[in-house]
Amino acid sequence: MRILLTNDDGIYAPGLRALRHELLKLGAVTVVAPATEQSAAGHSVTLLNPLLVSEVFEDDGKTFIGWAVEGRPADCVKLALLELLPDTPDVIVSGMNAGSNAGINVVYSGTVAAAVEGAFFHRTSIAVSLEYDKKIYDFATGARYARQVIEQILARKPADGSLFNVNIPVLERGPIRGVKVLPQNVTPYQEQFDRRVNPRGRTYFWTTPAFRCPEPHPETDVTALEEGYITVTPLKFDLTDHARLTEIQNWGWELR
Amino acid sequence: MRILLTNDDGIYAPGLRALRHELLKLGAVTVVAPATEQSAAGHSVTLLNPLLVSEVFEDDGKTFIGWAVEGRPADCVKLALLELLPDTPDVIVSGMNAGSNAGINVVYSGTVAAAVEGAFFHRTSIAVSLEYDKKIYDFATGARYARQVIEQILARKPADGSLFNVNIPVLERGPIRGVKVLPQNVTPYQEQFDRRVNPRGRTYFWTTPAFRCPEPHPETDVTALEEGYITVTPLKFDLTDHARLTEIQNWGWELR
Repeated sequence: MRILLTNDDGIYAPGLRALRHELLKLGAVTVVAPATEQSAAGHSVTLLNPLLVSEVFEDDGKTFIGWAVEGRPADCVKLALLELLPDTPDVIVSGMNAGSNAGINVVYSGTVAAAVEGAFFHRTSIAVSLEYDKKIYDFATGARYARQVIEQILARKPADGSLFNVNIPVLERGPIRGVKVLPQNVTPYQEQFDRRVNPRGRTYFWTTPAFRCPEPHPETDVTALEEGYITVTPLKFDLTDHARLTEIQNWGWELR
Repeated sequence: MRILLTNDDGIYAPGLRALRHELLKLGAVTVVAPATEQSAAGHSVTLLNPLLVSEVFEDDGKTFIGWAVEGRPADCVKLALLELLPDTPDVIVSGMNAGSNAGINVVYSGTVAAAVEGAFFHRTSIAVSLEYDKKIYDFATGARYARQVIEQILARKPADGSLFNVNIPVLERGPIRGVKVLPQNVTPYQEQFDRRVNPRGRTYFWTTPAFRCPEPHPETDVTALEEGYITVTPLKFDLTDHARLTEIQNWGWELR
């Protein structure tokens, strides 16, 4: 099996390294990932700048890992499939991200965007993220769980272009309670900016870590993750609100 | 009516100026938009840098337009609603973008992302984009059509958080044939990179304009736009593939 591995934390991120270590048990892994951190890149792509690439090796300087790209997660997947990889991968894995990508965060996530881009190319694509607490990230343990989930997804031979969002809960709160397949939570987040004035008198704002979802729907990715379950959410990239199409078609549109 | 206007082409873009001119016929317009072009920003947000803001005025230096933000389209909407605007707007409009945002481009679009962000805040949110040919953008005419569509959407008093993606077809090919309400096309695009080597011997790639959708589904935003219709697509931001949830819940998940 040929696996393309990417992420949004950058090619040298420990989450990617741990996940690569586990995925090598499943097949041949080639990494094409951003050269630098691209958190919250969403599904941005690079139109105005050149995408520099460089080959990356293990610490022996000889064992080829893949390519670092001076671009976004979605750029990496495009370049990998169109230019860099000699053969089309069977599966595209994105992660393991430092921090969960559940609820509305799915929309901001570069990790998920890379997987969506893989689905555009009709490959099975899986985003993997690890929730954390108190800045402790046990990527090695998280990646072992992630690999088990990925194995079980692939064993089912999902249709080409199937897209999955996998989140691993905080590992330090006790044993994982199981796997739950649930929808993305869509209730809004609360967030806060910190307003300051710079030495030249200009106002600026920092985003703050006070970004929380006060009332998640029960039985969603956000709640199950909080309860200690691994969550799996099948995603799609058709944003159409199909339920409202007919109603809006009948609005009697007119142009003058 | 209070209108927040944003975009991804930057606060000084002619498409925004033309749309503001038309929206002033509907109510009070405040602009909060990126200071510089943010095309293909997707739903990226700024976590690691401060968001500088500055007040922007009309050419008389006195008539207040709004704020320029050194950030992404989605940052602008967040800042507008949480910090900058004295009152919550009734509607958020994003555009008018130079170039359509239909099909898979919806996912890359900063214009659409700003509207999605508005929907997160439970406001009616409308993304507006203008297709073009041979680099001619008649934003003035496009904005007149866009205002008519926006008027008709608002006249229906859609539920809070309703989200619409509006595309205006090429205006130079003849009169607009009408308004069609259709789903987003989801067939894949073809694209190409241009591979080069820089003076230091490093390989780099440029994205190219050869980004096209060879086989769009009939009766989608992409086909209707090509046929000369204004397209309206109701969107939502739940990416869950609900049709597959039950099947995948029954996969007999196991962890070791």
